[in-house]
Amino acid sequence: MTLNKPLVVTAGEPAGIGPELCSALADSGFAKNVVVVGDSSLLDQRLQIIDTPFPARIVAGKPNPGNAQTLLDGLTLAVNGCLQGKFSGLVTAPLAKNVIADSGVAFTGHTEFLAELTQSALPVMLLVAGDLRVALASTPLPLREVADYITTDRLVRIIEVLHAGLQLRFGINEPEIIVCGLNPHAGESGHLGSEDDAIIAPAVEAMKCRGWKLRGPLPADTAFTPASGHADAVLAMYHDQGLPVIKYAGFGRAVNVTLGLPIIRTSVDHGTAFDIAGKGIADPGSLLAAVELAATMAAR
Amino acid sequence: MTLNKPLVVTAGEPAGIGPELCSALADSGFAKNVVVVGDSSLLDQRLQIIDTPFPARIVAGKPNPGNAQTLLDGLTLAVNGCLQGKFSGLVTAPLAKNVIADSGVAFTGHTEFLAELTQSALPVMLLVAGDLRVALASTPLPLREVADYITTDRLVRIIEVLHAGLQLRFGINEPEIIVCGLNPHAGESGHLGSEDDAIIAPAVEAMKCRGWKLRGPLPADTAFTPASGHADAVLAMYHDQGLPVIKYAGFGRAVNVTLGLPIIRTSVDHGTAFDIAGKGIADPGSLLAAVELAATMAAR
Repeated sequence: MTLNKPLVVTAGEPAGIGPELCSALADSGFAKNVVVVGDSSLLDQRLQIIDTPFPARIVAGKPNPGNAQTLLDGLTLAVNGCLQGKFSGLVTAPLAKNVIADSGVAFTGHTEFLAELTQSALPVMLLVAGDLRVALASTPLPLREVADYITTDRLVRIIEVLHAGLQLRFGINEPEIIVCGLNPHAGESGHLGSEDDAIIAPAVEAMKCRGWKLRGPLPADTAFTPASGHADAVLAMYHDQGLPVIKYAGFGRAVNVTLGLPIIRTSVDHGTAFDIAGKGIADPGSLLAAVELAATMAAR
Repeated sequence: MTLNKPLVVTAGEPAGIGPELCSALADSGFAKNVVVVGDSSLLDQRLQIIDTPFPARIVAGKPNPGNAQTLLDGLTLAVNGCLQGKFSGLVTAPLAKNVIADSGVAFTGHTEFLAELTQSALPVMLLVAGDLRVALASTPLPLREVADYITTDRLVRIIEVLHAGLQLRFGINEPEIIVCGLNPHAGESGHLGSEDDAIIAPAVEAMKCRGWKLRGPLPADTAFTPASGHADAVLAMYHDQGLPVIKYAGFGRAVNVTLGLPIIRTSVDHGTAFDIAGKGIADPGSLLAAVELAATMAAR
């Protein structure tokens, strides 16, 4: 595959596994289609590199908050390049949120940072592994806060982003979406919580009135199985309702896609893995899958 | 396989798919090893049957609360037979909790009923699909109630039941158990909730002091993947954290095992399926797997 414009790949936290994963791209079929943003001293020199040298010494597995601003500057450069049309999409290797927060920069997360840079009100996380696609209706929250976070209005807006994203990024004209219940068995007719009937059902009904192909709220325990029929995406209400399934199904090759941005953005489904950084044993499977999916979207 | 004593299989709600699933046992390798409790008129006559005729007319898909007491009497008969040593274990087809509740009988659930009959303080649900075993630390609860339900004391007792059950029923001498966190990323060092460090970690540490092979609290999104290493069982904190994974992994062949009872008890992983009852299209896969697993346990 040759893209008209390259993808930009950010190498992420320099003390994590990001740079070595990016270096693996040099031996992949995507070498000519990517530009990597990171510290050149950490990257395979056969790659096209935008060098962002880090001020503090880089020790694998020992992140230094003194490098946080340079990391964010690289991310900003990559996003602006996408917005300006220099790059066809963004692929991100992992960063460590707490390391950046420790540097004193106000930072709530990778995706939130990208949303702010691109002035996007509601980024939606979609995990993809083969034909299975799982979106999340909430950001990672303490379990106690999930039920109050889910409102009918918010769900309507999230489903709009998901529906548009499946059309725009995946080329699915009439996406079929399964919406999970919040409570076990989708509340069992109110015996196990009221939110499924009171909060989720009205959102689903509102979208069905538009002619959209939605089903739900369905019990989450069977929503991901053939028993619930075909779906182009399953919308889980919260992190641990959806992610265990997709990470089990797509171990080592799941890709995180951010919908609701004006740019294509994919990401790995794992963290910085400080415990194995610099040892050359990190599996680049998820990064390669993330680049492949971004390339497919860019070529569409 | 020939057992010294047969398994007893309860056909469950007569208007559901239970009776037709049980009839499928007549053509299985287990025909000679099971005694089925149910209405003889609904069952394959080649089976050994303990006939419990229902008083109200049986219409597939239309449950009648007038049959609830007979259903529970059959279940009681089966459990007493196990306790008396007539049967080597119990396998249950599904019943509909709300139908029994509508009859006016105080009834909180299939498993709770069995626990009461056998005077068992803490039944623990374990789902099994091949090598993957997932236990639940809480009964099905509204999501809002989960965090308060999980206490260190309760976790310790649940892990004791799980550990003993893996030894007794599965013949695993030193079971390895992964304990999931309650919050996403197991609380991310307190950034996403305090319960993982304050409630779950002390329970895990207490059991590790006994020399037990426990790990946790681990992030649930990777707890079920090879990234978390081998485990004989994964203990999920709540219904929708654990069941979506095992039902995805073991679609149509997952088995529900109740640990903490003085008898062997397995069950299907699905409900009464009133929508397809009587049509002869229900898949007996889970019931056959439940009988096979109970037989393996009984032969141990």
